Amino acid sequence: MKARVEVFLKPGVLDVQGKAIEAALHGLGFPGASDVRVGRVITLDLVATDAASAEAEVKVMADKLLANQVIESYKVAIG
Amino acid sequence: MKARVEVFLKPGVLDVQGKAIEAALHGLGFPGASDVRVGRVITLDLVATDAASAEAEVKVMADKLLANQVIESYKVAIG
Repeated sequence: MKARVEVFLKPGVLDVQGKAIEAALHGLGFPGASDVRVGRVITLDLVATDAASAEAEVKVMADKLLANQVIESYKVAIG
Repeated sequence: MKARVEVFLKPGVLDVQGKAIEAALHGLGFPGASDVRVGRVITLDLVATDAASAEAEVKVMADKLLANQVIESYKVAIG
């Protein structure tokens, strides 16, 4: 079963990568680009065969390893 | 208008981050995790008001700045 975790900085946490990309886009002739945010996506295969247990497993993975919950939030999608 | 670009390493390119996460997950007691891949998501606001021109604009941004097309591929989603 496929799972997917998206990790983004929490609102209010300065997104340095996003700001750098925004400045670069302005410099490249896209002055209309704003509110640029950068996150990570982690996709993986699991042996779990039902969506509920897969989701529970991936949430534990995210809590323990994939996201730094002090500054990041995550979303899990299964299937 | 909101846009979203997902950037992943092309199939066949060694995903070092993904391999490291996979090894760490195995070490944390998730032996079933496999084929872990890590990508970036960039979300941004645009001034364009129609989806077609927004998509065209974001594709140029991705070609020029957001993705390294030698080793990465990207997907654009609008709205």
